[in-house]
Amino acid sequence: MATVLLHADVEQIAFLLGTWQGEGEGEWPGSEPFRFREELVFENVGKAMLLYRQESWDLEDGSPMHFERGFFRPTGPGTIGVILAHQMGAVEVAEGTVAGTVIECASTSVGLMSTAPPITELRRRMEVSGGRLTYELQMGMRDIALTHHTRSRLEKL
Amino acid sequence: MATVLLHADVEQIAFLLGTWQGEGEGEWPGSEPFRFREELVFENVGKAMLLYRQESWDLEDGSPMHFERGFFRPTGPGTIGVILAHQMGAVEVAEGTVAGTVIECASTSVGLMSTAPPITELRRRMEVSGGRLTYELQMGMRDIALTHHTRSRLEKL
Repeated sequence: MATVLLHADVEQIAFLLGTWQGEGEGEWPGSEPFRFREELVFENVGKAMLLYRQESWDLEDGSPMHFERGFFRPTGPGTIGVILAHQMGAVEVAEGTVAGTVIECASTSVGLMSTAPPITELRRRMEVSGGRLTYELQMGMRDIALTHHTRSRLEKL
Repeated sequence: MATVLLHADVEQIAFLLGTWQGEGEGEWPGSEPFRFREELVFENVGKAMLLYRQESWDLEDGSPMHFERGFFRPTGPGTIGVILAHQMGAVEVAEGTVAGTVIECASTSVGLMSTAPPITELRRRMEVSGGRLTYELQMGMRDIALTHHTRSRLEKL
């Protein structure tokens, strides 16, 4: 593919661009702790956002676990919006900050299919440092206050 | 990639699988009518949904226009949920029906970034017939009642 120029709005998150792979672990009240292999891809298409895709697989049996698709869209210097679809039937709008190579955001709305788990809230923190991306996710559900859910450490391909 | 078995839940929408390309035209109150090139891709990963990605480019100058990412997730025989992120800062949950090779769905929730256009409602109709996918989108915004927005005709690659 031809090189696509970076929109000025996304220069502040250009440190995310590329394919990141690694492993992580998760926990959730009432479930066994779990480990996973994960890939994140951030792609530039020349617009004022980066395309984001996430997928994870069970580290034991290789079965597909979670898939997210969406966009990272800066809203101004040091601020960002994240718009995501989650495979189990949820969508999320989150807003937050970009400080150097750290992104932190909290959901401002969560939409659910009638069959989806009752997610109420999501918070993410991504940090790129020394060629490694560390990704932490917190989640709240109806009757479960916001709590740590997953953490992964990914290397750039 | 190795062949991945189709989850039983998605057999009823297997007619969508693959890459579809073609052209379409759109209109919106207060804007000039426009034409676009479009690609839809539906991908199976063995889970109870199909991955969906949409992108369109201006037919005149080839610049990227709209991008959607998400999932088509049947909820039972003849019923489906669609969970989508839109590049301009919106997310959508829609539910509807699968009748033969026709999918019709209407948004049950729309989430917006603070900078997004004030979309209130979306309806989609997709029909596969004779190797062609016809895609129609209706949209409503604050102060603009639900109205026809785009229509495209795509061929399977």
